[in-house]
Amino acid sequence: MAERLIYLPLGGAGEIGMNAYVYGYGAPGKERLILVDLGVSFGDMETSPGIDLIMPDITWLEQNRDRLEGIFITHGHEDHLGALGQLWPRLGVPIHARQFTGALCRLKLEEQGLPADVVKITGPRPEVTQLGPFTVQFVPISHSIPESAALIIDTPAGRIVHTGDFKLDGTPVVGDPFDPILWHDIAGEGRGIKVLTCDSTNIFSTHPGRSEALLANSILEWVMAQKNMVVATTFASNIARLKTLADAAVAADRKVCLLGRAMRRMVGVGLETGVLPDFPDTIGPDEAAGMPRNKVMLLATGSQGERRAASAQLARGRYLGLALKEGDSFLFSSKTIPGNERGVIRIMNALSELGVDVYDADDGLYHVSGHANRPDIEALHDLLKPGIVIPMHGEHRHLREHVMLARDKGMTAEIATNGTMLDLTGEAPKVVDQVETGRLYLDGNVLIGSMDGIARDRIRMALNGHALVSVIVDEEDNALPDAWVELMGLAGRTRGGDDLARHIEGELAEFLESADDRTVRDDAKMDEAIRRIARQVTMEEIGKKPEVTVIISRLMAD
Amino acid sequence: MAERLIYLPLGGAGEIGMNAYVYGYGAPGKERLILVDLGVSFGDMETSPGIDLIMPDITWLEQNRDRLEGIFITHGHEDHLGALGQLWPRLGVPIHARQFTGALCRLKLEEQGLPADVVKITGPRPEVTQLGPFTVQFVPISHSIPESAALIIDTPAGRIVHTGDFKLDGTPVVGDPFDPILWHDIAGEGRGIKVLTCDSTNIFSTHPGRSEALLANSILEWVMAQKNMVVATTFASNIARLKTLADAAVAADRKVCLLGRAMRRMVGVGLETGVLPDFPDTIGPDEAAGMPRNKVMLLATGSQGERRAASAQLARGRYLGLALKEGDSFLFSSKTIPGNERGVIRIMNALSELGVDVYDADDGLYHVSGHANRPDIEALHDLLKPGIVIPMHGEHRHLREHVMLARDKGMTAEIATNGTMLDLTGEAPKVVDQVETGRLYLDGNVLIGSMDGIARDRIRMALNGHALVSVIVDEEDNALPDAWVELMGLAGRTRGGDDLARHIEGELAEFLESADDRTVRDDAKMDEAIRRIARQVTMEEIGKKPEVTVIISRLMAD
Repeated sequence: MAERLIYLPLGGAGEIGMNAYVYGYGAPGKERLILVDLGVSFGDMETSPGIDLIMPDITWLEQNRDRLEGIFITHGHEDHLGALGQLWPRLGVPIHARQFTGALCRLKLEEQGLPADVVKITGPRPEVTQLGPFTVQFVPISHSIPESAALIIDTPAGRIVHTGDFKLDGTPVVGDPFDPILWHDIAGEGRGIKVLTCDSTNIFSTHPGRSEALLANSILEWVMAQKNMVVATTFASNIARLKTLADAAVAADRKVCLLGRAMRRMVGVGLETGVLPDFPDTIGPDEAAGMPRNKVMLLATGSQGERRAASAQLARGRYLGLALKEGDSFLFSSKTIPGNERGVIRIMNALSELGVDVYDADDGLYHVSGHANRPDIEALHDLLKPGIVIPMHGEHRHLREHVMLARDKGMTAEIATNGTMLDLTGEAPKVVDQVETGRLYLDGNVLIGSMDGIARDRIRMALNGHALVSVIVDEEDNALPDAWVELMGLAGRTRGGDDLARHIEGELAEFLESADDRTVRDDAKMDEAIRRIARQVTMEEIGKKPEVTVIISRLMAD
Repeated sequence: MAERLIYLPLGGAGEIGMNAYVYGYGAPGKERLILVDLGVSFGDMETSPGIDLIMPDITWLEQNRDRLEGIFITHGHEDHLGALGQLWPRLGVPIHARQFTGALCRLKLEEQGLPADVVKITGPRPEVTQLGPFTVQFVPISHSIPESAALIIDTPAGRIVHTGDFKLDGTPVVGDPFDPILWHDIAGEGRGIKVLTCDSTNIFSTHPGRSEALLANSILEWVMAQKNMVVATTFASNIARLKTLADAAVAADRKVCLLGRAMRRMVGVGLETGVLPDFPDTIGPDEAAGMPRNKVMLLATGSQGERRAASAQLARGRYLGLALKEGDSFLFSSKTIPGNERGVIRIMNALSELGVDVYDADDGLYHVSGHANRPDIEALHDLLKPGIVIPMHGEHRHLREHVMLARDKGMTAEIATNGTMLDLTGEAPKVVDQVETGRLYLDGNVLIGSMDGIARDRIRMALNGHALVSVIVDEEDNALPDAWVELMGLAGRTRGGDDLARHIEGELAEFLESADDRTVRDDAKMDEAIRRIARQVTMEEIGKKPEVTVIISRLMAD
């Protein structure tokens, strides 16, 4: 059978987050494989309460790990490498990355006690990594973190460009500028570009993207205008922004103090690996607390309203000896990710109560995106002239819009969401398989499936409350009539003022006294009947249908 | 003691929603009182899971109900009248409103089996309602629902203007246009305006607000450009928008079908009360399903992503015999309220999967706000020249910004959040009391306090899971060692693959076998020890600290 080139997203195609893209080349079912990125996304109260990290279910890849040649990490953001610590053991192959990114990969592995030497550091193009049928180059591309890279993946079926996250920024403050001549050359080599797998995040943003360098002035002006303590928050991993903010602080004669573990770590790794040679010296919170208020800028984690991050703690009053007060200024140099608005607004209001002036990025002066906007995406299409466009890094609506854009311009394009395997060998992509995919939740320190029912039960308890019923059946199979009911997350009193738990117990006593032997001997029947009564009584009394857990204890004759 | 004029917000000052503002006049502690508005806000999964409606805790007003003269409702939105059905019985005084608003108030009361005749219909200025020391006029003001009114509240201490929700719209499509000459006259009467209690919602929007009428063209152009089924969603209570959308449908030769109970009810009341004389005829879903797809516009509830509303159901595939498909178009003619983004995006992606083209209001073509922007608020200040500005209808940051704006312009202004009683008698407001306020949650059909611990327990169960332990102590005060553990919302397996519940039971058995008599006889000690063991074992095994409920059953000697 002829060999083929396949593409299979396991994460990131149908959502923004947990990127994981598989490419394969070989005889059908025997393709040699590589994985590009292995990231996480973050839980939320509505769909995954109690879950910090979400990662792609890579069962398919695990089952085919004997065919997997290696993992390539495009850049150091959590949605591209955050799952390595949890999932690498299931794959066990080398991880290839540039130096700074590789250092972050090693930290992820070391945190889980895994061997860091599986990370192979690779230089940028023209350096190549040859794995099976794949020849891979890291091509510097502009984003918001040092050493971001697109991948050139050369295969016997042709050349793939996998953009990773990118924007067209000639002056990105950190990392390499976008180099159109370089990309023109890449597109002109050999048979040109067969497939462009392309970032879709900002496909709905219709204006051309703006450079990180444009912020320097407006942020400096803002800092200069402030008279007291200045705090700025952004993503810890937006190193470009940290640099822009810190440079403004220094220019305004302020010392920079980094607050938040993630931020200190990012800058630390940047300094160690030499990718941040001119990042200003920072001071610790003790020193910052002792300085005149107009000589300090705090750079704090928690731009998304995270309750435990530095920004939230400052807003609650005091953090590491630092306290904000009337006349201080706080800048959100960030975009609020959909779903995080309430948390961000909570912080803004808490700051307002302290008398702190809050500035956000709504007018575009203090934030630019790290992703290519629609005209920039078009520009890349035009520059690379790919045979096929495959949108990635987007929700369904982003992928669909990107496909429509490409088709409108006469290109071949196809939506492939997580689990859709495309055959890219011919002129047009063909769907050849649908693979089971899903999400894994890191809950505490165990990985659970998103469909295991655990998150569903949590959501149900949160919406409906939880009633617990304990019933004892004695040695002669008689149910003792005094069931015990405990309520959690339910009103204790009925509309009429009765105690709800005692009321349910009363109804259960009637049932238990009259239940026939066959029912009492049968756990399932007892459980069902008790559950039904508890739900029905609760519904009648307070209008809620709670989750009910029944524990039947059967006493044994000694 | 001299008489005084007081202001006391019980809801709406420190949040957007659940408006409830008290004014009083008389000797301190004996002021006669009126209440302006009695609205709700809506729960969310993060802070109030399972709660549909939130309303102000009006305990203070209930305790002083003998001093309460009446309730005035400014307009028919839920955040201004939605709590009447639940809370009116605690107050028992007449409700004053204009005709359409009054009809909606009566529906709220009737739904709860309350007498609708407590609603007194009042015409607009110059009609006055005289209650104790207050002479109140409803002054038509532009918003997004018919018969919106500001209140003129004349007192012996001077004139108050309470704006209610408003915008400066000369062509609001429904309801009365903003009339600057009328307001100029009102400001010029007698001693002028002593106090302006003013909507702050859009204080951060720096451009002048736009008229509802401006949308007619762009929405019509949009409808004309669509080739198949057209769906539009907005707030059911945004009657102006419903009218704009329906008019566009008719102009494009399409029939209008209203989907969703709230929308049908709003339009129905509008027709009955005669405030919507030229609203187009509508058709039912059966008829709509039988029409050519390019002859119909569906107007659907659920613009905020509500899972049970018409929009969500259409996005899931089928609703009342109507199904969307490739080539249909769906318009969000609405702003997404912060916190609802994820729900809205979920619908957008579901529609994208159906092949439906989704349009939102991000570019300003298909939505305008119903509230005054910053320059409009300034214009009202300038027109009314109040002695004192009291911002309302805003979170803390909105109130603070509004106060700063007013002060920058040389006016006297003061933040008063819920529970802060201001004495407005003199030139400058004085804080004279801090009253206990809070939130009531309608949970099922009972009202619970937001601080009762019920919502907190739900959130904890959702974040941490819930472990239930049943222990039996026999007639001789011996704990039976076989405790029973059930888990809800927790991983069933440990990292090592053990059954977590059985593992906890094993640890509990060790404890129960060795527990001394004093511990076993003491419910509190047993509970604490068992809880501690269950949490500790769960933490060790899966890294979570669950909520634990312990039921100890003590067998009695017959």
